[in-house]
Amino acid sequence: MTTPSRRELANAIRFLAIDAVEAAKSGHPGMPMGMADIAEVLWNDFLVHSPGNPKWFNRDRFVLSNGHGSMLLYALLHLSGYDLPIEQLKRFRQLHSITAGHPEASETPGVETTTGPLGQGLANAVGMALAEKVLAQRFNRPGHEIVDHRTWVFLGDGCLMEGISHEACSLAGTLGLSKLVAFWDDNRISIDGDVAGWFSDDTPQRFESYGWLVIRNVDGHDPEEVSQAIRTAMGQSERPVLICCRTTIGFGSPGKAGKESSHGAPLGKDEVVATREKLGWSHAPFEIPQPVYDGWRSQQKGAEREQEWEQRFAEYGRAFPELAAELLRRLRAELPAGFTEAAWAYADKLQAEGPVVASRKASQMALEHFGPLLPELIGGSADLAHSNLTLWKGSRDVNAGGEDGNYVYYGVREFGMTAIANGMVLHGGLIPYDATFLVFSDYARNAVRMSALIPAAAIHVYTHDSIGLGEDGPTHQPVEHLASLRYIPNNRVWRPCDAVESVVAWKAAIEHRLGPSCLIFSRQNLDHQPRSTQQVRDIERGGYVLMEAEGGKPDLILIATGSEVGIAMDAARTLIAEGRAVRVVSMPCSNVFDAQPVEWREGVLPSWCRARVAVEAGVTDFWRKYVGLDGAVVGIDRFGASAPAGDLYKHFGITAEAVVEAAKGVAKPAA
Amino acid sequence: MTTPSRRELANAIRFLAIDAVEAAKSGHPGMPMGMADIAEVLWNDFLVHSPGNPKWFNRDRFVLSNGHGSMLLYALLHLSGYDLPIEQLKRFRQLHSITAGHPEASETPGVETTTGPLGQGLANAVGMALAEKVLAQRFNRPGHEIVDHRTWVFLGDGCLMEGISHEACSLAGTLGLSKLVAFWDDNRISIDGDVAGWFSDDTPQRFESYGWLVIRNVDGHDPEEVSQAIRTAMGQSERPVLICCRTTIGFGSPGKAGKESSHGAPLGKDEVVATREKLGWSHAPFEIPQPVYDGWRSQQKGAEREQEWEQRFAEYGRAFPELAAELLRRLRAELPAGFTEAAWAYADKLQAEGPVVASRKASQMALEHFGPLLPELIGGSADLAHSNLTLWKGSRDVNAGGEDGNYVYYGVREFGMTAIANGMVLHGGLIPYDATFLVFSDYARNAVRMSALIPAAAIHVYTHDSIGLGEDGPTHQPVEHLASLRYIPNNRVWRPCDAVESVVAWKAAIEHRLGPSCLIFSRQNLDHQPRSTQQVRDIERGGYVLMEAEGGKPDLILIATGSEVGIAMDAARTLIAEGRAVRVVSMPCSNVFDAQPVEWREGVLPSWCRARVAVEAGVTDFWRKYVGLDGAVVGIDRFGASAPAGDLYKHFGITAEAVVEAAKGVAKPAA
Repeated sequence: MTTPSRRELANAIRFLAIDAVEAAKSGHPGMPMGMADIAEVLWNDFLVHSPGNPKWFNRDRFVLSNGHGSMLLYALLHLSGYDLPIEQLKRFRQLHSITAGHPEASETPGVETTTGPLGQGLANAVGMALAEKVLAQRFNRPGHEIVDHRTWVFLGDGCLMEGISHEACSLAGTLGLSKLVAFWDDNRISIDGDVAGWFSDDTPQRFESYGWLVIRNVDGHDPEEVSQAIRTAMGQSERPVLICCRTTIGFGSPGKAGKESSHGAPLGKDEVVATREKLGWSHAPFEIPQPVYDGWRSQQKGAEREQEWEQRFAEYGRAFPELAAELLRRLRAELPAGFTEAAWAYADKLQAEGPVVASRKASQMALEHFGPLLPELIGGSADLAHSNLTLWKGSRDVNAGGEDGNYVYYGVREFGMTAIANGMVLHGGLIPYDATFLVFSDYARNAVRMSALIPAAAIHVYTHDSIGLGEDGPTHQPVEHLASLRYIPNNRVWRPCDAVESVVAWKAAIEHRLGPSCLIFSRQNLDHQPRSTQQVRDIERGGYVLMEAEGGKPDLILIATGSEVGIAMDAARTLIAEGRAVRVVSMPCSNVFDAQPVEWREGVLPSWCRARVAVEAGVTDFWRKYVGLDGAVVGIDRFGASAPAGDLYKHFGITAEAVVEAAKGVAKPAA
Repeated sequence: MTTPSRRELANAIRFLAIDAVEAAKSGHPGMPMGMADIAEVLWNDFLVHSPGNPKWFNRDRFVLSNGHGSMLLYALLHLSGYDLPIEQLKRFRQLHSITAGHPEASETPGVETTTGPLGQGLANAVGMALAEKVLAQRFNRPGHEIVDHRTWVFLGDGCLMEGISHEACSLAGTLGLSKLVAFWDDNRISIDGDVAGWFSDDTPQRFESYGWLVIRNVDGHDPEEVSQAIRTAMGQSERPVLICCRTTIGFGSPGKAGKESSHGAPLGKDEVVATREKLGWSHAPFEIPQPVYDGWRSQQKGAEREQEWEQRFAEYGRAFPELAAELLRRLRAELPAGFTEAAWAYADKLQAEGPVVASRKASQMALEHFGPLLPELIGGSADLAHSNLTLWKGSRDVNAGGEDGNYVYYGVREFGMTAIANGMVLHGGLIPYDATFLVFSDYARNAVRMSALIPAAAIHVYTHDSIGLGEDGPTHQPVEHLASLRYIPNNRVWRPCDAVESVVAWKAAIEHRLGPSCLIFSRQNLDHQPRSTQQVRDIERGGYVLMEAEGGKPDLILIATGSEVGIAMDAARTLIAEGRAVRVVSMPCSNVFDAQPVEWREGVLPSWCRARVAVEAGVTDFWRKYVGLDGAVVGIDRFGASAPAGDLYKHFGITAEAVVEAAKGVAKPAA
């Protein structure tokens, strides 16, 4: 082999994909075979990256939104010199390999985000492009374009059918994210067959309606056409770009090209032979000729680009030392010095002052206090700013396009918002918080799951947390949501009971960078609870003794969260007056409580005291893990109703009286 | 007052809305004030309905997708003569009234679907229009158009921003649902203010890209323009129609018209006075002059139309007695005679034959068996037909537009699919089942909740139910989903352990018409379990003794579902060999089990036996409600991984050995 042709370079992708899927006996060869030529042009001629340092900040981001084509990405990473040896490709989809069935950002160097759930990669990419834009506005100075990179996305028909593609791309158009370039793999095939039967959109027209620049009718197998389209995309700075690439799924397979049979299963032994024949690829499985490797390797070029940027950054640092230090701090995901102390000081101040406010208001107070300390905070809400109370005095509109924005008006796009926030976290340099009503976390649910799986430490603010929202009624009243969100692995759900817990929850969410936090706030006012300074610190344990029984020996433990802590405290006072020794446990975050050492958990909920009553305005079964079969739970296992909040609490029996009654039904512990 | 003008008729809506919101001290006056003129034209001149019989089958359906404007609908229902007295409007948003904050189909006569979660009403309407089309194709005969009605939708900017509007409207365009007419309340305002900052789509262009007929630039306050647009919409039979109505939110309020301040709060006393002044409405709150009532009342006209249809239906019945009887049966939501017996016979046959198949395959076998008996079944999948196994031999493509379709190729649109299915149930005459992978129930989650809340007895088929799906990895492996779906009130989640339970689950879902059922199936093969005929019947109890302990006196109870029942049985055999008295409980549907009489529940899980181990490939905490603090749970509380299923079960420790180990750790009950 002399210098390989572009097609030969692309065929290396095709056969790595074909052979890895064949070895795994499962996977998706069709998409890598179809998009290989596009990928070859983009990666070899345009993508700015440094395979030796996948985390180089000013790299272009490449997102595979049609994540089932994971072998395309693994092949690209391997060929261009990332730390992904051929042995890993041979172990595609096997336990302990780093070549999972769908790309996982936490597993594989060079994978920018975890994809597979369709449409979300695209929305992540919108978030990355938005982060780039916001950071460029914040940090770049004339002659110092130190934040300057593009986000490239591959996507398929499936991504385009998903509703989230509408939410994310509509907003991207409004925001004018001109450094976002998406390649549509227009192969006319989805899993069920020819898409004509279920997907007849005029997609170019649709994206023009969003204000995108649409480049139509590109032959995805013609490198020159692809190149020209990319140059057109890069030659403008107004709009996001959709490049519509006509491709053949399973390109090169004599029997399966253009058919859904190439999509999601191995080609099969005979067809692999025939495809080798057809494409003139005579090499054994996983064998890549050195000239092909030579045509792909990008470490050197990448290192040079990185080096060049480092020099520019050094100059920037000399010209703007404070800005440079600030950017570096953010990229290290390091909070400003003194943040923790300032946060505790504020919590202590509120503990002393004892404001009686809705926890959504307390959340806004926390933002007012933390916002000036944390320029990396970037807020937003799905068209509920004044209900979620996510704006603070320092909020500056990102949508308006001015300098230094830190608040995104997401519109009514919960799912898109959440996946965009994930993308901003993945990009780095920002701590996003998004918001909607708790019940509409449902709309965003898989993106919350992806926050936890990626993991992306986004902060999801959910207000109007129960029947306590009142008149809007059952469509708006969460019942099962607290429990359901708590069950997402690696997710933290905070439901504070007053202003002090709200501030501590915000502090914990900001400091926790290993996964998402959901902050759940009330619409209605909540009582202030008395605490010692140590108890204020204990909030961070997720569950703690808010009121101790006489002598520290409870014959009854009441456990509550959020708005029901006040109810538990009222009930405790009644029971104490009747001679019971009652402990009240506030449990703002069961996920964090469960992760405490056994000594802490046992200290709060001693095994010997089985007389336990939990109270929360949500499904009761969740609480069996703490009260067992002997305890009782006061909650709600049906849909709510439309009425003033006070009426609803009485109607559904979530009252101090009900807790007292339940307490009398549970056995006292043996003396 | 002489004969009232159209504006005066519309003003009756405006002031009922203004005054009800004022009385409730909460609600949304802006939208009813803005859309009143459109509603007046539609309801008085075009809508075919019978206020005296809100359930008349051939009525037009009217859906308020922007459900926060509920007072518009209540005003319309009241004025046109539905059983919704003025006293109910005075009690807007109060406990035990039937005028909830958002419209609820189960509460209020004439409310076609429950709306509020934005975009879903629109998708429900697509389902209604699709049901009409499918039933018309099935039942109409030349000269006998007995299924012939339209679906009208009001929607706002919020609905259009939501991703589900893309999914539903794209599919509606593909399906050519020409009897669907949507009115876009183009008022340029959403909750956060002028939408220019976050919603700059060219919406007419977008809908043209879906293949809709778009009628642009209609003045929503000019009855003649609205009339003309509706006539244009009705004059074609090819495409769904979007009528773009420019309106002023809060129309008539001198201080708040055109502003977001009119959207979601009472106008306030002074502004109400000023609005009365401005619109020339001198009547007291809730006082409607008789001439205005006379201009609205539609009982007579509706009754005549209904009567006329009844006559046509009688003629149809004489010409096509079997078809007429079949349609009436379906409209009574009555299953064909003998269905139950046939279902049990099939379950018994499978019990005898003992096939070892994946439960998704068993589900398809159930469809093959039940499909020919139930022409009202209408299936579909979100582009996973051959993975979900939702096609059966009698499946006929709805999308192709031929006669008598019973299978919808939904494309990759989980949320839209589910809300469309809800709409088909609401329409009547069909039993829809939809399908995707269990993990992607997340995408559809709020529509599943709405199935339960409306309630709409849709059947949601979710396959690939655990890490048992193997190589696709954690993005595709449900962990928290079983528990989360079970927590939705009024939802039933079935997870069968073999072919027999799969068939009984299908039977139960088909027979249960009071809410949705989720049928959860495995990708991988499952062992067949031995059962007596009585045990086959017991499956329907949701939880039952699959294997009894020696002498009926267990010292240990193992509880399992789905693929883990086989594991529990293996563990039981080991433990029995070691001398333990083990009962195995199969719990295919905890929701149904929990609803059994206490005697049944106590018979299956006797209180005296606390030595209990639950095993399910999902989050463990859910099972504390059955095993308490003394029992143990074998499950998975973290994300899965990409590897063959067998490797994963071992890796995550969901094995018979782990169950045996756990069993040894739980106390035996006192003798």
